[in-house]
Amino acid sequence: MKKPMKVVVTGAAGQIGYSLLFRICAGEVFGKDQPINLWLLERNNETSIKAVRGVMMELDDCAFPLLASLNSTSDPVECFEGADVAFLVGARPRSKDMQRKDLIEANARIFIEQGKAIDQSSNKNIKVLVVGNPCNTNAYIARRCAPSINPRNFTAMMRLDHNRALTQLAQKYDCAVDEITDLVVWGNHGNTMYPDLNQTKIGEKKVADTLDATWYTDNFTPTVAKRGSAIIEARGHSSAASAANAAIDHVRDWVLGSNDQWVTMAVPSDGSYGVPEGLVFGFPCICKDGDYQIVQGLQLTEEQKAGIARNIVALEEERKIVDELIG
Amino acid sequence: MKKPMKVVVTGAAGQIGYSLLFRICAGEVFGKDQPINLWLLERNNETSIKAVRGVMMELDDCAFPLLASLNSTSDPVECFEGADVAFLVGARPRSKDMQRKDLIEANARIFIEQGKAIDQSSNKNIKVLVVGNPCNTNAYIARRCAPSINPRNFTAMMRLDHNRALTQLAQKYDCAVDEITDLVVWGNHGNTMYPDLNQTKIGEKKVADTLDATWYTDNFTPTVAKRGSAIIEARGHSSAASAANAAIDHVRDWVLGSNDQWVTMAVPSDGSYGVPEGLVFGFPCICKDGDYQIVQGLQLTEEQKAGIARNIVALEEERKIVDELIG
Repeated sequence: MKKPMKVVVTGAAGQIGYSLLFRICAGEVFGKDQPINLWLLERNNETSIKAVRGVMMELDDCAFPLLASLNSTSDPVECFEGADVAFLVGARPRSKDMQRKDLIEANARIFIEQGKAIDQSSNKNIKVLVVGNPCNTNAYIARRCAPSINPRNFTAMMRLDHNRALTQLAQKYDCAVDEITDLVVWGNHGNTMYPDLNQTKIGEKKVADTLDATWYTDNFTPTVAKRGSAIIEARGHSSAASAANAAIDHVRDWVLGSNDQWVTMAVPSDGSYGVPEGLVFGFPCICKDGDYQIVQGLQLTEEQKAGIARNIVALEEERKIVDELIG
Repeated sequence: MKKPMKVVVTGAAGQIGYSLLFRICAGEVFGKDQPINLWLLERNNETSIKAVRGVMMELDDCAFPLLASLNSTSDPVECFEGADVAFLVGARPRSKDMQRKDLIEANARIFIEQGKAIDQSSNKNIKVLVVGNPCNTNAYIARRCAPSINPRNFTAMMRLDHNRALTQLAQKYDCAVDEITDLVVWGNHGNTMYPDLNQTKIGEKKVADTLDATWYTDNFTPTVAKRGSAIIEARGHSSAASAANAAIDHVRDWVLGSNDQWVTMAVPSDGSYGVPEGLVFGFPCICKDGDYQIVQGLQLTEEQKAGIARNIVALEEERKIVDELIG
């Protein structure tokens, strides 16, 4: 039997958490042979604590053989102590009339605190996935507040955008999603995101050779970028199970490998493709041996460069706001 | 690549459905190599149809390689046509001041219709799991209305009770859940259920040899039987993810085997242990080669016989009500 890993999930009482936790404990992220010590970070108020208790009772009621232990706390330092992996799901949602700047400031407080706690107490090789929005910038904040951790290990979730793009394309071309390779959604998990089909293949065929440019511009790109709102309109609630599923895909591939396939991960830029160093940016990545590499050597068209550039602008604006807050 | 299976889920817009569907599509029930044609039965009203559309959008957004096709309909005959497996999750919940008899009658209408549709259009080897309560009697109703299907193939969910009992026992004895074997919860998924530790072992040791009788009577049994209410109290919502997990465990073991371990399944009695033939009753079962067998040859104590007897009484009362309704 393998030694248990310590896994932290924040926002465990929320809807994404509820869709995520049971699949983690069923072995869908770390494998069916990897026991888990699961820690839930709860907010220090009665509603949150009660809701987390309820979730823990249900986790108990599953009798998961891989769940070696289950704990919760409202103390981030205790929660992240020795943690191997963290899913930072909890975030302040946007309330009506809140501007993106207000949202960033409200979330900065949360991710400054969690970044510092990770810096202080976690395993130095911790893998962090930020799901809570604005996830790219929240990951940037946490990384900046955790100087003792390798910056590479703070990532943000663009896999939901990637998966949405896969299915939209599969439906257009009437193919299976796993026939599609070399797709990426560059940039920020926000309106500027750039789903890029320039390198994409279906089987051996390049999509670009037969691409319907009108469909791409008027249908595909806005459908992927505005899918979150469409889900809210249909369900009356924001995406939860599909977001949790993308978090599972992201971390599973990071830990267990992506089988030489491209996946989209938002990771701190190393300067690749002209993206300023440190911005947490959606890149095409290949995962192997518990690590990821940004796919190198792509010859970008002017259209691709422009798609990347608009995301750099968006993320640098957010970085400016949070750099002032962090000081 | 295997040929896709047709899987039907009812109540797809509900909370259990929402916790169940994504795990089915991820391959947790039928294996990571089994493609699925998924059909959702929706109720014919705007709210339900809209909610099901939202869930389908999210399923699309997961880009599950195993999801070969995805459809919904409000026509049961179309939905069950050629179906290989059905999760009957949707049911009329108990409203305030509703007696169990009223609940049974309200649900009888649903399960009579679905049983007839299964009889008319499904694969004759369909495996049916009823999750919607009162699940034992709902399964009995559906079976009675589907005379062309082998009665054995209509089952109801007691696996949540089984899993709850496992964890309560593991916490009491400070052992892992997978060290526990030969546990069963006999009878009805209701207050009379009989969690039975007489045969249960932890490793090589019989639990009965060291059982704290007061704990068993005053703590263990009521905790297992009343767990549903405790979850509602804690969460403000009824068990959803843990119920979905039990449904997954039930059908996965039925299809892929239980590795020679006892699992609790409510199945139509063949007369074993004096349970009247046809009552859908929680028995210890072992699953192998896509089938289940009720564990035979147990020498029952008087206490066990009494525990079984009180469930026979409860289920025969319900059967009497529905036999009159079905005619």
